[in-house]
Amino acid sequence: MTVKAAVAGATGYAGGELLRLLLAHPDVEIGALTAASSAGTSLGAHQPHLGPLADRLVQKTTAATLTGHDVVFLALPHGHSGGIAAELGRNTLVIDLGADHRLKNSSDWEQWYGNEHAGTWPYGLPELPGGRERLRGATRIAVPGCFPTGGSLALAPAIASGLVKPEVTIVSITGTSGAGRSLKPHLLGSEVMGSASAYGVGGAHRHTPEFVQNLSAVADGPVTVSFTPVLAPMPRGILTTASAPLSGETGLDAVRSVYDKAYGDEPFVSLLPEGVWPTTAATVGSNMVHLQVGVDSSAGRLVVVSAIDNLTKGTAGGAVQSMNIALGLPETAGLPMTGVAP
Amino acid sequence: MTVKAAVAGATGYAGGELLRLLLAHPDVEIGALTAASSAGTSLGAHQPHLGPLADRLVQKTTAATLTGHDVVFLALPHGHSGGIAAELGRNTLVIDLGADHRLKNSSDWEQWYGNEHAGTWPYGLPELPGGRERLRGATRIAVPGCFPTGGSLALAPAIASGLVKPEVTIVSITGTSGAGRSLKPHLLGSEVMGSASAYGVGGAHRHTPEFVQNLSAVADGPVTVSFTPVLAPMPRGILTTASAPLSGETGLDAVRSVYDKAYGDEPFVSLLPEGVWPTTAATVGSNMVHLQVGVDSSAGRLVVVSAIDNLTKGTAGGAVQSMNIALGLPETAGLPMTGVAP
Amino acid sequence: MTVKAAVAGATGYAGGELLRLLLAHPDVEIGALTAASSAGTSLGAHQPHLGPLADRLVQKTTAATLTGHDVVFLALPHGHSGGIAAELGRNTLVIDLGADHRLKNSSDWEQWYGNEHAGTWPYGLPELPGGRERLRGATRIAVPGCFPTGGSLALAPAIASGLVKPEVTIVSITGTSGAGRSLKPHLLGSEVMGSASAYGVGGAHRHTPEFVQNLSAVADGPVTVSFTPVLAPMPRGILTTASAPLSGETGLDAVRSVYDKAYGDEPFVSLLPEGVWPTTAATVGSNMVHLQVGVDSSAGRLVVVSAIDNLTKGTAGGAVQSMNIALGLPETAGLPMTGVAP
Amino acid sequence: MTVKAAVAGATGYAGGELLRLLLAHPDVEIGALTAASSAGTSLGAHQPHLGPLADRLVQKTTAATLTGHDVVFLALPHGHSGGIAAELGRNTLVIDLGADHRLKNSSDWEQWYGNEHAGTWPYGLPELPGGRERLRGATRIAVPGCFPTGGSLALAPAIASGLVKPEVTIVSITGTSGAGRSLKPHLLGSEVMGSASAYGVGGAHRHTPEFVQNLSAVADGPVTVSFTPVLAPMPRGILTTASAPLSGETGLDAVRSVYDKAYGDEPFVSLLPEGVWPTTAATVGSNMVHLQVGVDSSAGRLVVVSAIDNLTKGTAGGAVQSMNIALGLPETAGLPMTGVAP
Repeated sequence: MTVKAAVAGATGYAGGELLRLLLAHPDVEIGALTAASSAGTSLGAHQPHLGPLADRLVQKTTAATLTGHDVVFLALPHGHSGGIAAELGRNTLVIDLGADHRLKNSSDWEQWYGNEHAGTWPYGLPELPGGRERLRGATRIAVPGCFPTGGSLALAPAIASGLVKPEVTIVSITGTSGAGRSLKPHLLGSEVMGSASAYGVGGAHRHTPEFVQNLSAVADGPVTVSFTPVLAPMPRGILTTASAPLSGETGLDAVRSVYDKAYGDEPFVSLLPEGVWPTTAATVGSNMVHLQVGVDSSAGRLVVVSAIDNLTKGTAGGAVQSMNIALGLPETAGLPMTGVAP
Repeated sequence: MTVKAAVAGATGYAGGELLRLLLAHPDVEIGALTAASSAGTSLGAHQPHLGPLADRLVQKTTAATLTGHDVVFLALPHGHSGGIAAELGRNTLVIDLGADHRLKNSSDWEQWYGNEHAGTWPYGLPELPGGRERLRGATRIAVPGCFPTGGSLALAPAIASGLVKPEVTIVSITGTSGAGRSLKPHLLGSEVMGSASAYGVGGAHRHTPEFVQNLSAVADGPVTVSFTPVLAPMPRGILTTASAPLSGETGLDAVRSVYDKAYGDEPFVSLLPEGVWPTTAATVGSNMVHLQVGVDSSAGRLVVVSAIDNLTKGTAGGAVQSMNIALGLPETAGLPMTGVAP
Repeated sequence: MTVKAAVAGATGYAGGELLRLLLAHPDVEIGALTAASSAGTSLGAHQPHLGPLADRLVQKTTAATLTGHDVVFLALPHGHSGGIAAELGRNTLVIDLGADHRLKNSSDWEQWYGNEHAGTWPYGLPELPGGRERLRGATRIAVPGCFPTGGSLALAPAIASGLVKPEVTIVSITGTSGAGRSLKPHLLGSEVMGSASAYGVGGAHRHTPEFVQNLSAVADGPVTVSFTPVLAPMPRGILTTASAPLSGETGLDAVRSVYDKAYGDEPFVSLLPEGVWPTTAATVGSNMVHLQVGVDSSAGRLVVVSAIDNLTKGTAGGAVQSMNIALGLPETAGLPMTGVAP
Repeated sequence: MTVKAAVAGATGYAGGELLRLLLAHPDVEIGALTAASSAGTSLGAHQPHLGPLADRLVQKTTAATLTGHDVVFLALPHGHSGGIAAELGRNTLVIDLGADHRLKNSSDWEQWYGNEHAGTWPYGLPELPGGRERLRGATRIAVPGCFPTGGSLALAPAIASGLVKPEVTIVSITGTSGAGRSLKPHLLGSEVMGSASAYGVGGAHRHTPEFVQNLSAVADGPVTVSFTPVLAPMPRGILTTASAPLSGETGLDAVRSVYDKAYGDEPFVSLLPEGVWPTTAATVGSNMVHLQVGVDSSAGRLVVVSAIDNLTKGTAGGAVQSMNIALGLPETAGLPMTGVAP
């Protein structure tokens, strides 16, 4: 079976990573590549690392150019997916890498994004409880945000098992590509290199309600989330440190056994050996989540650290993984399990 | 008044930063420069950025070479200061940049460092309550660790005023120079660049008891501290994100007013304007602490972010500031208030 | 056909990159992994990005552990390949990623490396004139140095065609992984980040005689090479700027046509469209060489810029490409043609 | 004597570096700070590292706001200095950090910049032959480009003394701040980090005619210059490798003696000890030029490497040094001789 896939937003970082993965996917044929202002140029001008597609023409993102594909990936700015998706038939699998269809609560959407909510689609994080079931046979999939991917997987087993109280603190150190190719002064190399900076502090980042949604579902009850993102001088990668008060006296072995049980069969989640801490470099270009757990008995807290590549598992790789599940392809098809390091 | 200063450990990063500052200090004459294995070489071979001292001979670190100075800075590996200091007279101001004399509780020292405790010296963080009083006229000073400098100042006003409960979570993103010039594989450029990694997770970092000591003194009661350091790809800088549960319903204005009152007159602490978040780059090479506060009302937490240069305010600058106070010099003498950016 | 391959030096950067590529090679089964001091540990302790091999035991590098494979890759320090290779039978393909068997002239070897020359093997740069012929059916292959790979390909067509005089100047900017995992102070992250530095200046770098050998063969006459390497703050990548005096008045079109003819059919060499200059990022993790040419009519010089990943095309990818040719496998098998960017 | 200085272009990188230096200058009082689109904001919004000036209002760049100062620094985009300067009286020292007044030949200007030439001012590179004489008492000064600063000083002694033939090749590796705060895609952190790239290849960079002008004056005859700039992942610094054919058989000692004689008394030029190669990190934030020379006897070329901070000696520091000379202040006043490293 060969699946014909279109990518809308092919000139951005998420679109580029999608195409890198799809080029190596044994069951995918790459169809239309579309963009907004870059329509009419060739892809090589935007993605010089994708040699085999250098001469492909970038078309305008419209329902017409995207029609006739088995799968359409939408890697568009927030707020742009709803309209396009409505025009694509239900026998096309539409996978939204933007935020538009992630939140269940329309008032959350309106509070955080300001415009009308486009609706809720099956959520593409297979490793969460019930995650795969939601995706099998789906024709619409909302890809999680990059921060909620690494952060939700770090905490889900501890919350689901009641190891910790539902009051979590998450600090995520991210590379710059998560902000996309937007021309903002604080994203210039001169500003970024040699500097770490926090932003969206005090619960002000738009991924906060997605964290709350994921972890509350796991807890089957309310969870509070204090989330702080930090921008670090690297192009890719998210290192998340997540912690929560332990419910009781729990040793490291017990914690490891909970995580082992949750993720032991997951192809893309690796609980590292005791004493080995995740580095984002080890996951670069791969679809892996590297995890480690620690028990701070003085402070009475569980601390979990996860590393992912924000563009792969955090965006494009997660999207391909969900596509594989939805279409009944092998879940790991086309998805690297090794990083590019050093 | 001209003060003659010796630097033991002149070939390391902390020693190099001390010398950079002392060269520009109007009241200091640089005396002996000493080291261990590099004795007999010239300083230029180790500190190529310190041109004016390039031809100075590095001597062996012994009590004899350090005697006859008004001030002796000890920038030595942990566990090496106690012996040397005991041989230096009480009319010499000895300033220890290592950990040996920071902790009050000898059993804490022994638990975290393993060998016998050398004793407790006045603690060189003037901006803490009572900080300056402890330093005036002192002849022995323990310079704080780089993490406790930025982290304690981030939280002290909130804890002292009872704004938050004494259960704090601290995640600090640090540049690599904090680890010194040690030849360890994980500090190689190839490993560090493009990568973020956590270490000392779960309360395992040696700065944890120093945090607890500082914040418990401020709280006048027990404080639990969950501390996680993260290594980021930059040579200098620490960005600390610290949070704690709010004691009651507190708005941002009330928090800002508490911090304003605590630090409004401090020459080296700057509470940034609302909406501006600290970047480590803005503090590089300076003795400044940049602070910002946020109230996360959904999670019920105060979040404070601080940025410092780990080698300046976090080590050598803090040492010079404490020297200035101890000797009755102007507190800001020789200490840059502007960063080197971008 | 499945080829069983052993990797000696599996814990270093070159060995790690080899294993990353071999894991994805459709015709290779990974056999023994060996090292010197790390023998007895598991590979995961050294190569955390190679999850699928994490539990594989690292054996001691001896002829015995390497025997019984179809291919043996030697990624050893210079001077260590000769002895091992002599013990491996001629029906094993031995591929040396070190320098030992690259130079034809034994006195060159002795002058630059100091010990006895191990001999000369077929040179693994298929894109040079006659390159593929030398490799077909070979049982011993010397992989080129990383600098000579990008630099020789940049200049070969111009020299072969007589476009330029045989007096070339090459400046190559390299990432740090080219120096391997050696614990040297100047390779520490703190020293490397934010800094560029030259080394081996004035013809003092060991790759100089290899450049001379390659380009003299192409010229069929003597060529002088002034080579200067520069260390830049990035883990991977070599950007080479090479120039030489034009033999006559030559326009850009004529130059492009010479390069087009030389490389138009090469799967791993891409002459970029006019006006587009190579970036090393676009080649990271791939086996590609990106090239661009410029004519400086005022200075009367041809300027050629090439970008490669030093660990892939410059080392491990080049080795796999040569293996493919020697064994009659498809030349591009297992070799990425897309980079991991940004 | 206190000099009142205005800075036009105070919100850019060059303007920020000027202000950092002027704040520490013992004889300067900072007057008007001006900009174009940022007029009306406070400086802290643009230069967070300049705490002492955070509340200063940025005014509109007009002749009126700049009038009434002893010195006016123009850190404006190319082409904007001529008009403003014409409106400032001759008893004001006007120092242009842009390119407008550097070139002597109006047709060169028109060829490279396209608009009308504003005229030629005394050239602010005191270390060139006759450099100081040109600046004493000057009321107009053209600050050299950042590349020609490090590159001209690298080659001038060799050319002046006839050590080399007047056919030079220069490759300069630069940090990103040289491109200013312009919002261009290739300057984004995501693009820059982990990547080296060439640009302006083949004699296409606008600093080429300035190189030719400087070196031809030194040679007192025509010099050809092949110049290639390379963008590297660091915010500051230029490492220049310059080479030229040796005129005869010359040994390293003879070369060192020529450079020693040329620069032995220069406060800001340091010929490093034999065997020590420059690193840009050692010059960051300082006004120093670090130099090293090598003789490649096989290729018959002299190779010279220089390191500077592009924003300090390469722009703002060079401007302050020239101001000091023009006004009869001590030449080194306010100019750091130590770098900020690591």
